[in-house]
Order: sequence, then structure tokens, then C-alpha cells
Amino acid sequence: SGSPESRIRSAQRGAGRKGQGVPICLGCRAPSTAGWEQARCSASTHLTWSVCTPRVINAEKSEFNEDQAACCQISIRRREPGLEEDEEWLILCSTQFLTGYYWALFDGHGGPEAAIIASNYLHYCIKQKLEEVVGGITEAHPPMHLSGRCVCDSDPQFVEEKHIHAEDLVVGALENAFQECDEVIGQEMEATNQMGGCTALAALYFQGKLYVANAGDSRAILVLKDNVVPMSCEFTPETERQRIQHLAFLFPKLLDGEFTRFEFPRRLKGDDVGQKVLYRDYFMEGWGYKTVEKADLKYPLVHGHGKQARLLGTLAVSRGLGDHQLKVIDTNIEVKPFLSCIPKVNVFDFALHDIKEDDVLIMATDGLWDVLCNKEVAHMVRSFLAENRTDPHRFSELAKCLVCRARGKKRAHQWMLDDSHEASYDDISVFVIPLHNRDED
Amino acid sequence: SGSPESRIRSAQRGAGRKGQGVPICLGCRAPSTAGWEQARCSASTHLTWSVCTPRVINAEKSEFNEDQAACCQISIRRREPGLEEDEEWLILCSTQFLTGYYWALFDGHGGPEAAIIASNYLHYCIKQKLEEVVGGITEAHPPMHLSGRCVCDSDPQFVEEKHIHAEDLVVGALENAFQECDEVIGQEMEATNQMGGCTALAALYFQGKLYVANAGDSRAILVLKDNVVPMSCEFTPETERQRIQHLAFLFPKLLDGEFTRFEFPRRLKGDDVGQKVLYRDYFMEGWGYKTVEKADLKYPLVHGHGKQARLLGTLAVSRGLGDHQLKVIDTNIEVKPFLSCIPKVNVFDFALHDIKEDDVLIMATDGLWDVLCNKEVAHMVRSFLAENRTDPHRFSELAKCLVCRARGKKRAHQWMLDDSHEASYDDISVFVIPLHNRDED
Repeated sequence: SGSPESRIRSAQRGAGRKGQGVPICLGCRAPSTAGWEQARCSASTHLTWSVCTPRVINAEKSEFNEDQAACCQISIRRREPGLEEDEEWLILCSTQFLTGYYWALFDGHGGPEAAIIASNYLHYCIKQKLEEVVGGITEAHPPMHLSGRCVCDSDPQFVEEKHIHAEDLVVGALENAFQECDEVIGQEMEATNQMGGCTALAALYFQGKLYVANAGDSRAILVLKDNVVPMSCEFTPETERQRIQHLAFLFPKLLDGEFTRFEFPRRLKGDDVGQKVLYRDYFMEGWGYKTVEKADLKYPLVHGHGKQARLLGTLAVSRGLGDHQLKVIDTNIEVKPFLSCIPKVNVFDFALHDIKEDDVLIMATDGLWDVLCNKEVAHMVRSFLAENRTDPHRFSELAKCLVCRARGKKRAHQWMLDDSHEASYDDISVFVIPLHNRDED
Repeated sequence: SGSPESRIRSAQRGAGRKGQGVPICLGCRAPSTAGWEQARCSASTHLTWSVCTPRVINAEKSEFNEDQAACCQISIRRREPGLEEDEEWLILCSTQFLTGYYWALFDGHGGPEAAIIASNYLHYCIKQKLEEVVGGITEAHPPMHLSGRCVCDSDPQFVEEKHIHAEDLVVGALENAFQECDEVIGQEMEATNQMGGCTALAALYFQGKLYVANAGDSRAILVLKDNVVPMSCEFTPETERQRIQHLAFLFPKLLDGEFTRFEFPRRLKGDDVGQKVLYRDYFMEGWGYKTVEKADLKYPLVHGHGKQARLLGTLAVSRGLGDHQLKVIDTNIEVKPFLSCIPKVNVFDFALHDIKEDDVLIMATDGLWDVLCNKEVAHMVRSFLAENRTDPHRFSELAKCLVCRARGKKRAHQWMLDDSHEASYDDISVFVIPLHNRDED
């Protein structure tokens, strides 16, 4: 409905409306020197959780911090069927609300623009998509027909046999919201002649469950008293190699004769021709040996290892939003066909767990996870919270502490960790979200 | 090398050769009445493990048992580079062998022919593919060049960084072997004007590790003293819905206007048009609501639930060998493009586990798992083996006992389980493979 600009304006307009609107955490450009920048979440009496996103720019890596953060309360309203949106605003405030809490991190590349749009717009897409299915969410088993009308007597049985629960509607809404947000970013970036993309990690607490939707290489983990629960997995050219290679197998023209779809342990050279070298094709999790032909000397579609892994020699992530215009440098090869904007959604049901006082959700961009593993973060979380039990700002302080640890200290011209390993050179953003007493006002 | 027939004949011929050949468990058509048929594994002094595959035909479901089984020892020979296969046979018996043990189950559909070819040929493909990479298997880290020649000084580093181990070459060989076997079945079936396909579940014990490769809905589990380890997962239209729908999204012509790629909880009808009903598209793990259009009334690409789930209304599995000629009845729509012949390979490293006397690998076709869950099978395995500790044939007897339990008893015109649930109406094949003392002669 309407141009992307008007939709974004409308999302922002909606934010101002008391009780119904979406409080928006506006992303903004960070200063060009290293320093703290607290994420500014609109002060809302509805946002009951203390949250903190310290952000830091590291060691002159980029002029602008490409990470963006957002957090807000999302009020899901039952739609009166048949009414237009503008008419709906005229209806007096209804008591029929479902409330969700939302946190998200966006790690931009090729400029911060896509991350800024996403941080302003994704929660609006989520709100919209949830409202579209809200009639089904309030039932344990959603009805076959959203209207509740039963066309077949056995409709409830079909739904039950397929094990469709309210939770699946939320997952579907998140998947569709990411896709819509990606489309809007594409239109907006084209209209304003901007480039770039971003990863997206979004957490939604809704109806007693935590949903974590991830498209990119950020990460969310639950640090509980007795264990650590990963709530996301990373999507990179390495982890999605088979999907990417398969697409090139199905549509070889996408590579325009410039890339080889095979993976090799290193870039091949003339001396390798005629030799049998290690390789993998799209259908292989294992490795084989392949007699090298001249065509294998082309640059590999997926190449490099770990943080150096690249898709088409260009991108370090394989899922995210934006990048609609991105081409491989000096070619006509588009990157977007190989990217997915669909998140993987993980669900954590609080009803099945006894949440303790110091249990938290940690969300962070790759800048943190590049230098700290889950175990190290969990150790820091537990010891910090135990040592600062009386500090009312201890969750914010913990977030700062995590960023600080990953940023390291500048010694001569290098940023170093305490253990004298090299520190993260990337932007770092961290959310620390306490899980205890989450339903108290 | 050569026509499929000559290759198959050569595989069978090879079986007779002492010490070098592959002992073949020839599948054969079972009698058309319910009864036991012991899998005949060629008596070989090299096959040290007692194995048993009782097979049974159930309740007149099919005239012929479509299950096939194979087990044999596979001797992997280092190839002299540059020698033709026929010349190699002339070389005197080499001591340079690696020995593997192989068991496989094939569940045919549309006739037993594909399963028979697969049971005669897959182990030959595996032997071939392993021999092609054997030079790399004997090293902890396979060399970049199969020849061992180092083109780059840092080649070993590249291989190590990619975490490529000997195990990955075996996995790759299995993946490639399934693909080659599928091609040969396609050629053979076309040449002899036959139809049909089969699932394939193959286990290979090699160099201290157990590899289980699965394409279809058979299942393998390890029943150990203290836990049960699933060694495969099932590939059905339901478990592979997203892959299948995605292909239809990329190539809509494959559906020829006859099917809808969307999934609905039930087949839609005229009354549903204009309503919002539950649906899923290729990118969704969750569910959403979609306004029904006329095109949505077409038969769904993936439809039905559990054992009733079908691909294109035709097949109950989404991976396997064969089916190259299969078309949806009364249409020109091919099923093969939606099928995958690539197995998922799971590896179990015996060096990391303390294997006890009664620990076994259970492999069985879906006829068993349709009526017995892992937990029930594990319970039967443990109690049967504990009660029959002195019986030298206890593993064979256990296999019979498992088949018997799933087959149930005929009461009036129905086959019933002990708990008076309906018994399996499918063919049932079971391997019970003891894991203790596996390297003793």
C-alpha cells in the first residue's frame, strides 16, 4: 500500500501514537571516532525491560559505524475486517491488544543505509504481519479459515494432524516480515540511488515465548544458570556453500563464465592443471579429487575460510536484507540471486523452563563473536552479574563490559585483547536482556 | 567404462575372484506368500561379522517383496596409476588392501528391479570411488594433490585450515557412489524397458569408523548400553517439502499447470475460494494465511501427512535411486527432477566410544519403523540379547524377532500387533549387526 517512502513515513508516524503505535529506536550515525553510543530507545512506559546496546567503532575500520540497533514494544491489534488502515486509526483505542517486545541488530555493509532503513522498518513489518494473522494466534490450534468459518467439518482435525500451533503463525509472520522488509529496502535504495545491505537479527518476546529470527552472521544465545542455549546459527558463504553452489549448478549463467562453482582448498593455478586436487561440488558434504581443467582456474563462487570466506569474492554473509543493486566489481554479475533474506527462526518456550534471576539473552553482531566464544561470554555474564547483584544498571554495564572486552586495548597501533590476541576490528553491538520477571510491569 | 550391462556383469564377475573381489549378496525375488527368506550372503572367510536379514512379505500387499538386502566385505586396493582395470586383474594379489564391511537395504517401489540392480551394484560403486581416493585416505590430512606432489609449499596448511580429514574422503566417495549407481540404474532400466525406483540405506565400517549413508525412508540406529544413537534421518515429501517447493518456485514449468506448489492442511475446494486459509510456501517453516485463488484448487505438489504424504501425488519418498522414467499418471509431468539420489552420511567414530558386548547397529526398512519407534526397538534389543546371552545365533534371532513383532499376527483378515494396533502392511527388512569385537577375525 503506497510507495516505500510513504510506508516508512507511515511507520514512523505510527510510532508517535500513544498506546497503539510502535515506539521506535531510531538508528543514527555514530561519531567517526571510537566511543560509546547508547542506543536511544524511545522512552515508553510499555517497555518494561531494561536493555542496553553500547556500540563502539573500532580502530578506524570504517568512517561510520555500520551497526544499527532497534528495540521497542509492539502492540498487535485485532483488525476489524473490511476497514482500511486510515479508517482504523479513527476507531477509539481498543482493549484488544497483544503485546510483544522486540530487539534487533543490523550489521550494515557497503554503507549504513540499509541497516538504518531496516532498523526503522522491520518492526513495523512484523507488527503488520502479526496483525494479519492475529485471529489465529489466540487459539491453541489456529483455524483452517482465518474467519473461523468451518468449510469442512474435519478442518480442526486437518490442522491438528499437521501439528500447526499458534507459534507457527508467529514464525511465519517473522519470515514474511523479513521478506517484505527486504522488498521495501530494495525499492527505497533504488529510489534514492543508494547501495548496500545488512544482516538482521531480531528477537521477539510474545505470548510467553521468545522468537529469534536471524539472517546473517550476528548471534543470539541464552545464558541460563546451568546451560547456554544457542538461539541462532550463522549464515555465511561457508555455512551455505551447498545452497549457493546448487543455484549456480541450476543457473550457470549467473556466473557469466567468470567463476567456477567448485570449491577447492585454495585458488588453483596453471601448475595444477591435469593434476587431481581436492574439491567439493554442491551435493557433497565430503571431499573428493577432481582432475583440474583450465575452467577450474576461475575464481571460486565460494572462496576462503572463516572470516575470509567470500561469496563471489564480494560478500562475507549469505543472508540479509538489501544488496539489490550489488554487482561483482568490474562485472555484470549480480550477487542478490545468491542471497536469501529469509531468517531461520528459533523458539524458546518460557513455560518449559524455570528462569532464574541472572538468566539473560545476549544478542551481538559478529564483532563480538569473532573474538569471544559462547563459553567465554557465558563465563563473563555469570561472573559479572554475580559480582554486581545490587547495581540497578548491571545489565547495561554488562553489555558495555562485553563490548569493551572484544574491542580490546590500543597498544601502539594495534587493538589487542587481554590475552594479547588481536582484538576485533569490526563494529561491535551487544544487547543484554534480562529474562527474569519479564511479565511484570 | 562400457555399457551399464557390461559394468554390472563385471561387478558380478569380480565377486567371484578370491581375495580381491567383492562378495555379493544377490537379491532375489521372494516367494509370493508370507514367509521367511534369509538374505544369502556369499560365504566368505573375510566376512567376520554374523549378520542376518530376515525378510517377510506382509498380508498380500505386493506380489513380490520389493525390499532387497546386500552385505559384503569390500577390499580397497591401491590402484597402480596408468593401468587399465583389465590389466590390473592380472597383477598378482597385492598386500596393499584396506578392508571395509558393507550392509545395505533397498526398498523398491513400482517393482523390485531398481532395488535388485542397486543391491548388486552399489557396493561396486563404493569400492570404485574409494579406490579412486585411497591415496588420500591413508593420511590423517589428505594431500591437496592426490599424487602427493606439493605445488604450493603451504598446501598442507590449506587442507588443515579447511579441516579436511580422511573421513571426508570416505563421505565424498559414498556421495559420489550413490550418484553413479543412480545413473547406471537409469541406463539399465531404460535399456531393458523397466520402471521403478528404490530407497537406499548403506552402512560401511571402514578404518575404525562406521559410515551410514541414507537416501530414503529406511533407518539405522545404534543401540548402545546407555543410549540410542540415530545414524540416519528420513527423506520424505514432508521432510524435504522446502527443497521440493523451492525447485517448483524456480522452475514452475515442472508442474505443467497441473499442481500448486503451496502446501495446505487439506485439499482445497470451490467453497474455499476468496477465504483466507492456512498455507506454507517454500521459504516458510511457519504457517501463514493466504487468500485462496482458483489456481490454489490444483492438487498440491506435496500433499498428505505422515505415511500418506506424497510428492506430486505419486511418491512417498523424496530421495532414492531410479525412477528416471516415472511420470505422474495421465500427465507428462516428470517426478525425477524433484528427487535426489544423494545420501546424507553420518559418521560414528568407534575410537571415541567404549563399545559393549551387546551394542548393535539396527538397520531396517520403513516397514519396521512404521509400527515401532526407536525406544521400543532399543528395549526389545536389550532385553532379547540379555536373555539369550549364550545363543550363538542370537543376533539373527533378534532380527527375526523384530520383523515378527512388526509383522504382527493375522486375526480374521487383519494383521495386528500384540497391543492390538494395526501391524505393518509393508515389506520389512532388518539387519542386526553386533559391534563388539568387530576387528577380530
